[in-house]
Formats: sequence, structure tokens, C-alpha cells
Amino acid sequence: MPIAINPQRLLKDLHDLRAIGASGNGVIRPAFSDTDIEARQWLAGRMRDAGLDPAFDPAGNLFGLPPEPGKCLLMGSHSDTQPEGGWLDGAYGVIAALEVSRASREAGGPPVAVVSFQDEEGRFGVLTGSRIWAGVLPLAEADALVDTSGVTFVEARRRMEPMVTGDFLPADRFSGFVEAHIEQGPVLDQQGESIGVVDAIVGIRTERFRFTGAQNHAGTTPMAMRRDAFQGLAAFVNDLNARLTGIVTPTTVWTIGHVRLHPNAPSVIPGDVEFTVQWRDGSEARLEAMTQTIRDCAAETAAARGLGLERSDFSALAPTAMDGGLMSNLSGAADRLAPGKWRRMPSGALHDAANLARLMPTAMLFVPSIGGISHDFAEDTAEEHLVLGVQVLAASLEA
Amino acid sequence: MPIAINPQRLLKDLHDLRAIGASGNGVIRPAFSDTDIEARQWLAGRMRDAGLDPAFDPAGNLFGLPPEPGKCLLMGSHSDTQPEGGWLDGAYGVIAALEVSRASREAGGPPVAVVSFQDEEGRFGVLTGSRIWAGVLPLAEADALVDTSGVTFVEARRRMEPMVTGDFLPADRFSGFVEAHIEQGPVLDQQGESIGVVDAIVGIRTERFRFTGAQNHAGTTPMAMRRDAFQGLAAFVNDLNARLTGIVTPTTVWTIGHVRLHPNAPSVIPGDVEFTVQWRDGSEARLEAMTQTIRDCAAETAAARGLGLERSDFSALAPTAMDGGLMSNLSGAADRLAPGKWRRMPSGALHDAANLARLMPTAMLFVPSIGGISHDFAEDTAEEHLVLGVQVLAASLEA
Repeated sequence: MPIAINPQRLLKDLHDLRAIGASGNGVIRPAFSDTDIEARQWLAGRMRDAGLDPAFDPAGNLFGLPPEPGKCLLMGSHSDTQPEGGWLDGAYGVIAALEVSRASREAGGPPVAVVSFQDEEGRFGVLTGSRIWAGVLPLAEADALVDTSGVTFVEARRRMEPMVTGDFLPADRFSGFVEAHIEQGPVLDQQGESIGVVDAIVGIRTERFRFTGAQNHAGTTPMAMRRDAFQGLAAFVNDLNARLTGIVTPTTVWTIGHVRLHPNAPSVIPGDVEFTVQWRDGSEARLEAMTQTIRDCAAETAAARGLGLERSDFSALAPTAMDGGLMSNLSGAADRLAPGKWRRMPSGALHDAANLARLMPTAMLFVPSIGGISHDFAEDTAEEHLVLGVQVLAASLEA
Repeated sequence: MPIAINPQRLLKDLHDLRAIGASGNGVIRPAFSDTDIEARQWLAGRMRDAGLDPAFDPAGNLFGLPPEPGKCLLMGSHSDTQPEGGWLDGAYGVIAALEVSRASREAGGPPVAVVSFQDEEGRFGVLTGSRIWAGVLPLAEADALVDTSGVTFVEARRRMEPMVTGDFLPADRFSGFVEAHIEQGPVLDQQGESIGVVDAIVGIRTERFRFTGAQNHAGTTPMAMRRDAFQGLAAFVNDLNARLTGIVTPTTVWTIGHVRLHPNAPSVIPGDVEFTVQWRDGSEARLEAMTQTIRDCAAETAAARGLGLERSDFSALAPTAMDGGLMSNLSGAADRLAPGKWRRMPSGALHDAANLARLMPTAMLFVPSIGGISHDFAEDTAEEHLVLGVQVLAASLEA
């Protein structure tokens, strides 16, 4: 039962979807915008053409259901974009699912349902549609969420009300979920590889720290009498890097992306610095060990330099392991179609799959991002990789 | 010829001047404001009471001239304040000069002229009045300077036009200049000392640096593939501190007070960081050696981490040595009146004395700042130190 996908049909659908909200090489199609709703209506039409029944739920999630009774595999991703997004982020996984579903039907393979979740990009938070569908976020609670321009979720979803076909689909309609996605990072591209089989979606921990010293005149305060908060931060960063090397793996990451000095003037010793540390890993135990190291390091730096230390806004998102059986199907297909050109790897970014994994066996497949670029109009992937990814998805059905 | 100053008269004048523009414990009397002009008119009256002829020049500088012919010593500072200033910054040196001039006249000592320079605090730049008077800044050029609210210097000084008594006084009217000032730093206060005899006003060099790396997703970019501009800065700071220890003295200072990350978001690897390094020392050779070290260190950090490096806005203000003879007179007086409680020290802040030193022998005397606080409503000095400083000034005339 070989399932032959149709590359021309796949690429045409991708480009037709890209045209809805196109802006240069990129796309502007944020959740519940005119272009997002237009794209979902177009997608519902393509589902019908593929023999699937479109179903819009109250959160704006769009499912395409095979007519066959009983459980089936669900594939998909999201078709909303960042306010200024790339053309493949989300869209690739939705159209890939559509093509696999069509090709499987044509080949007499297993029925495959298709989904485009709503607001993955977080106009109202993060992964809003799949969080609601998975029962992580109650709809009533979601309704009160407000976007940056003051619009509530309930106001936004009312725009799609005429399209809603029924209540939320029950999760037990599906036997598992597979999400294809662009990597959004540089690993496959830089290594010259074509396919990534995701083994875990990393957990993310974030904490804000503040060193408080003494704000003073940069001319009249000798070095030995200073309590310079920024010097404290610089020492902390170097000490932390050295300590973490004993704990981490090559896929662990930690980032200080946000720093605020006060008063931030060249002639004033900074008496106050706030900074945010974020760390990600696929292992909860490693995340916890890093947490201790980061906090110890900050406390010791502050104590050694006479600085005050405050911690706030700690958040912890647990890692999500992918399903062994689905991973094995994907790995087998990748090994047949791209021998020596694929790898297992964590997903450093969050995806709807993290919510689906609470309910059913779940897996993810990555294709390369050229230059690792995403969330940018310049986001792109070679056509051969777009096609190969869908071929691997289809081949994994054969197992 | 002992010259006995009158502490009550000194303190009363200081408090009377403080009342003009008073705000809590501080003073709001920026250059050419209503309160600044009122203070200068009050000061002209006190000069007349002391037997001095007030003279306003076109830049708003106010001199009090003794009636005696021939050269005389000039003492003073400035009576304008920061937008939210302390009560002693500048005012102390002006009233100290007035008291010394009065006391010397009463004791039959040498005539002493008094000055309050205009806009020392830099509404229109920095040390504006003394720069114009010393010929460093041509009046026509100054006239085009604009304050933060869009007012030009020529518009501002027109407010004082009715008071102007004549052209700029010739520098050769004076045999030397002595400026008393609060330290504005913590050294004397923390060491339990009463008097500082300034040996040099430090030179100040400032340069802005920029590291450019690659802005990337903090989840999907492995550590080994990052070009994180902020990590570059942290490494630079620590490396620079280590290298400078071989060059500096205990009074040398260097500061990174201004840092700007882009995009400055917790989930984004900072691809761009701008920061300003400022370094001060009394020796031009040491400033130059530091310049080389700072630039080398930045270039090596950038090269080692694959970062771009830009340098801009370099500025260099040369150090100003104080006059040996005047310093010796002040040191002798300090040693008699405060044995074991005084020190020679550099001024880490700029003062009008730096401009006067181009034209005549110049010296400065510091009294302690409680807690090192200045440019703040909380700025203060113990009364015994306010009095002692003026006693040292007066005693130095006896040499």
C-alpha cells in the first residue's frame, strides 16, 4: 500500500494559502483577522474537495473529518500567522496533512483527519485554540483574554460564529496526532539534513532577576566603593556559563535576552539592573537542576558584591515527550526516504502538539528552515524538503 | 595677619541663598530661570554689602570686584543648580568666596574677587558660562545652543540683558582662581576626613561600542550556533576588568552605565547590543593606555565570538593639573587646621576650575558630601565641615 503524494498539488495549495494575506514574501494572517477567516473558509473548501467534512468549533479550530466511522489519525497544525509572519509557519503542517489525507484516500490507505488550530501564534496568549480544545484552558476563561489592542477573545471569536458547525469534537475521535512543521532553527539547514523527528518538546522556565546596588556619580565614586549592579550582572553571566557546562547537553539552551539598567546613563553607575533568564530542555530533572544553579549563582554574586537580589515572575512549562510508536513510524520512513539525512531532535519552540500529547499519542516532524529564519517575511524552505517531509508523513502511515 | 571668618554670617548667607528656589531640602534654580536670576540679584547685593562692585557680563556670569587696583585672587563657583539640585553644589563655593573676601577685608588681608559662573550645570552643554569667559566657547557659537525644551542660549541670556554691566572682564584682572566645592563623592565622608586638596581634575574619555551578532529564536538555536551580542558584552566586561588592573591607580575609574539590547525580549537571542564605556583619570598617558586596552579588548571579544564591532561618539576631555603654589598654600592651611584629616585627591567631576586653569594658576578645595550624595535633594554637608572649608581657604591667603 504505497501512498504516493502529489507534489504539484501540495505546492499549489501552499502557494494558494500563501496568497491570502500575502505581504512581500511573507504573510499577515493573525488569528480572527479577515485574512485568517478567509484562509479558513478556503481551507474548508479544500477539505470538502478532498472528501473530508469541515467542522468549525466555537474556538475557531477547523477540522476536516473523514466520512469513515471509528477512530482515525489526526494531522495538522495552524493557519494563523504572526502579525508579520512567514508563509510556512503552521501553514506547512496543515497543507501537508491535507495532502497526506488526499493521497491516502486515493491509495486506499487509512483515513486521516486534518486540523488547523486557531491562534497558535498567541494573539490571545499562546496556543490558544489547541489549549481550549485539549481542555487546558476553559472557554469561559479564554473569553476574557485581551489582545494588545484591547479586543477580547469572545469578541474576536464572534466574527467566526456564523461558520461554527457544532461543539468541540471529542478527543476520542482520534487515535493520535502528527504535526509537521518547519524547524524554525538552524540545525537541519546547517548540518545539511532534510528531516527531523522530534523526540520531545522542550520545557521552558523563565525567571526575572534584579540586582540592586548604589546609583552614584561615575566620576566621583572610586571603584572600591561602588556597588555597580551591571558589573554584578556581567560577573553572574560568566560564572553561570561556567557552572552550567557541568549540567547541560548540547541541545540545552539558556538565554538572557532582556536587560534593563537604571538610570542607564553613561555618567551614572547603574544602581539597578533587571534581567530575565530563560532556559529550555527536554528533561524536567535537568530543568530543575538548572533552576537551582541559576538561583544559587545569582545569590552568590549578589552576596559577594553587596547587591540586593530580587526574583520574580518565575514560570515553568514542563517538557512533553513524543509518542514512541509514532516516532518509530516516522523514523522508519525517514530512514527509507532520507537515509543519513535525518536526525532525532528536540523542538525548542512550543507547538500545538504539546497540548494534544495530553490526550493522545502525538509526534512531530521537522523540515529545514533556510538559515534558521522564522517569524520573519524571509522564512523559507527548499521545495525538495517541503515535498520530502510530506512523503515521510505518508510513508509513516504505511507502518 | 590672621583672617577670622564669621561662621554665622557664612551659614546665614548659605541658607538665604538656599531659600531662593527651595524645594524640600533641595533647590530648583537652573541657569536663567526666575530663581537663578533672583539669586544672582541677591548675590550682587551681598557683594555690594561686602564692599565689592558687582559686574554682570553678557553670558550672565556675575563677578564681585574689590575696589583696589591691580591683580587680585579670584574665588567662587556657580549659583545655578541641576533641574532638581542640592543646596550646596556650586552655592558653597560662591558663598565661601564671599565670606573669605569679607573676612580678608576686615582683617586687612589681600583683596579677593568673587564669581558665580553661569550654567555650570549644563542647561546649554557643560560649564557654559566659564567656557565662554575663558574663550573656549565663542559667544556667537554658544548663542546657537539649545536646551532640552528648545530654548536657545541667546534667548535665555536676553532675560538677564537689563542687568549686564559691561563686556567680559579680562582674565589678567586676576592672579589666580580658587574654587571650593562639595566633593560630590564618598571618599572624605567614608574615610572620616574633612578637607580634600584637589591635585587634578580628571580627564574624561567616552566611547560608544556596538556588538552585532545574530538575532534568533531562544528555543530553536543551539548554544554552539549562537552569535549572542549580550554574551559578548558580558565576556568583554570581565576581560576588560582583568586587563585594566595592570594599568590603573586606586583613583582611576571606568564605568559602563548605558547598555541597550535589541530586541530586548526574553525569548529572543539579542543580536545587537550597544554600550557606552567612560573612563576617567588625572593622567593623559594613562587615559591613552586605557583607550588602547578597551578598544583591543572589544576587538578581540568580537573576533573570538564572530560578532561585528562598531565604535562611535568618542570624546576626550584632557585632565587639568592644579597649580603647585596654590595647592601648597591650601595644603599648608589644611595641615594646620585639620591635621591628619585631609588628603590630596583628584576631582572625578568637572568644574569651572578646569576652564580657569587655561588662563591662570588654579586650585580647588573639597569638603565632604554626606554619603557621597549630590545632584539630589538629599545632598548635604556637616556644618563643621562647611565652616572648616572656608577657614582653610582664608588661612591659605595668609601664605
